[in-house]
Amino acid sequence: MASIRVALGERSYPIEVGEGLIDNPAQYRAHLPGGKVALVTSTVIAPLYLGRVANAIQAAGGEVIEVILPDGEENKTWQTLNLVFDALLAAHCDRHTTIVALGGGVVGDVAGFAAAVYQRGIPFIQVPTTLLAQVDSSVGGKTAVNHPLGKNMVGAFHQPQAVISDVGTLQTLPMRELRAGLGEVIKHGAISDPEFFAWLEANMDRLLAREPAALTHAIVRSCEIKAAVVGADEREAGLRATLNFGHTFGHAIESGLGYGHWVHGEAVGAGMVMAADLSARLGMIPRTDANRIRALVAKAGLPVAGPAALPADRYLELMAVDKKAARGKIRYILLDRLGSAVLRGDIPEPLIRATLADCTEA
Amino acid sequence: MASIRVALGERSYPIEVGEGLIDNPAQYRAHLPGGKVALVTSTVIAPLYLGRVANAIQAAGGEVIEVILPDGEENKTWQTLNLVFDALLAAHCDRHTTIVALGGGVVGDVAGFAAAVYQRGIPFIQVPTTLLAQVDSSVGGKTAVNHPLGKNMVGAFHQPQAVISDVGTLQTLPMRELRAGLGEVIKHGAISDPEFFAWLEANMDRLLAREPAALTHAIVRSCEIKAAVVGADEREAGLRATLNFGHTFGHAIESGLGYGHWVHGEAVGAGMVMAADLSARLGMIPRTDANRIRALVAKAGLPVAGPAALPADRYLELMAVDKKAARGKIRYILLDRLGSAVLRGDIPEPLIRATLADCTEA
Repeated sequence: MASIRVALGERSYPIEVGEGLIDNPAQYRAHLPGGKVALVTSTVIAPLYLGRVANAIQAAGGEVIEVILPDGEENKTWQTLNLVFDALLAAHCDRHTTIVALGGGVVGDVAGFAAAVYQRGIPFIQVPTTLLAQVDSSVGGKTAVNHPLGKNMVGAFHQPQAVISDVGTLQTLPMRELRAGLGEVIKHGAISDPEFFAWLEANMDRLLAREPAALTHAIVRSCEIKAAVVGADEREAGLRATLNFGHTFGHAIESGLGYGHWVHGEAVGAGMVMAADLSARLGMIPRTDANRIRALVAKAGLPVAGPAALPADRYLELMAVDKKAARGKIRYILLDRLGSAVLRGDIPEPLIRATLADCTEA
Repeated sequence: MASIRVALGERSYPIEVGEGLIDNPAQYRAHLPGGKVALVTSTVIAPLYLGRVANAIQAAGGEVIEVILPDGEENKTWQTLNLVFDALLAAHCDRHTTIVALGGGVVGDVAGFAAAVYQRGIPFIQVPTTLLAQVDSSVGGKTAVNHPLGKNMVGAFHQPQAVISDVGTLQTLPMRELRAGLGEVIKHGAISDPEFFAWLEANMDRLLAREPAALTHAIVRSCEIKAAVVGADEREAGLRATLNFGHTFGHAIESGLGYGHWVHGEAVGAGMVMAADLSARLGMIPRTDANRIRALVAKAGLPVAGPAALPADRYLELMAVDKKAARGKIRYILLDRLGSAVLRGDIPEPLIRATLADCTEA
């Protein structure tokens, strides 16, 4: 078992990574101040892990209220958020209640946002059960729901008390979801650690075979990288934006196709290929490095081009409303070398269009 | 013009109080970082002040997007909040947008909560146009919407960049709303300043006649008292709860009757009489002080007893789910002398029932 500390002053918290953690009452006991525990999960995760986690929390002294939400990105909405509030209020949960978010990124984002705003803020614990959530969304305190006009448009920064990442839960993860998580793992190597990137090139087969030791290493290194960035820039004034490498294009793909057609990690896979292509086109990195990124994304089984259905004009329109846009100007996270990302806002539109033309499915 | 500083470190901000402030571009210029300005108001306030404020913001260099919400406590809901998000997204507002909340407490709470969570937080300015908002809800950074099972159950702490309180706007305020605001003014005297309480006893007629100098004094002193409390306890760990004097009973009245039957200040008026009665019943203050509170509430034209329609059992049920309740135990804000409030959680139920029996309309 490994433990990583996210350093945020009085809001600091640990990320625990290992096998069999979800069944261990001690994992929860340290972070439950007493009072009720709202265990929020999804219809997909409930039959797999709800009972085990509820038992461990009860053994840790918690009174559990179960809240089961509809699954999927298309349900990351106000309506689903309100289901949490309805359940908490029906159970007379006061502000000393702790929310435990058991599931993937959608559950974590919705339950985390519920914790951020229920009675103006209550504590919560992340128990991510997907690779994507374990390496990305559960770390850093970003919570949100989607709006029909944009992804994650309504949310809050709300740090958890702890993140409990059990790699055992990845054994039941659908292959498509595993690949999606690997997209963010690749991203962490690409933006800040060339050695980790090379390790991924050498070990992608072990990760796809779900070897616990390989998964644990990938999760720990990803969390270390993300925790360092978040610790330096919690509110995304600058550095934190580099974690959105591949996301400017990726969000446009998700939003343009309608949520749920491509999963997030797939859109980020193609988005990273685009961002790397654009970086090479600008002469910031050699074309060989852009090719390495494309090859690793392909090896993870993720798309290396955007969907044919999405024209360039639509990308530009969607990216202008992205949260990363500054006063309507689209900002791109690009690489100035493999392992180092920078934020750039002055990219000529013809270059963007050239990248989109070259990185779109025929 | 008077200026009060709310001291909250890097989130400190000024409250400006005076006549004619809303027309002065300089009032806004200092607090607009650039970018778009979403001017959020209600159907009632729009015809009175929207044009004047929009002109002043434009003169200060702001590009104004107008958002007009349905009026009234019954519209302090998710649905209304979503209208703000819809408007901001339709206008391509990014995270450099500033929200200006022009109106009473409902507009301030909804627009402030929208600012707290739109793209995970954008700046906002309060321009309160009711006495209640000027002396209470615009100060301290509490924002929220109601839930069918409880008032202000979903919200955030989000401090404004500035509060601009123009006493000129109180000249158009309906009498019932003026009286409601006086309830909170009386509260500030009762919980922390016996001299101010005595000043109110001597000057209530001037306030009801809307003399600008008297109103300015009452607003400034109220804001000073509230700002001192909020500065010492932003997140309501303890001291801040004393600002809820009269509110435990008051919220039960509002919630029990259904929002909109009694306005907030009326419920607080009766709630303060109840809390003072309970304090006297416990021997914490002399009965004469409880009588002074009852007399001043009556002089302001506010109810001094709860509605006949609400039985004691319903109060107890509703108060148990109040945010101030700690692990299901109802906590009361009581007086240990006129001008000093304390939090008490150990009140025998028969005493509560005796107070409710004595302080309910026949």
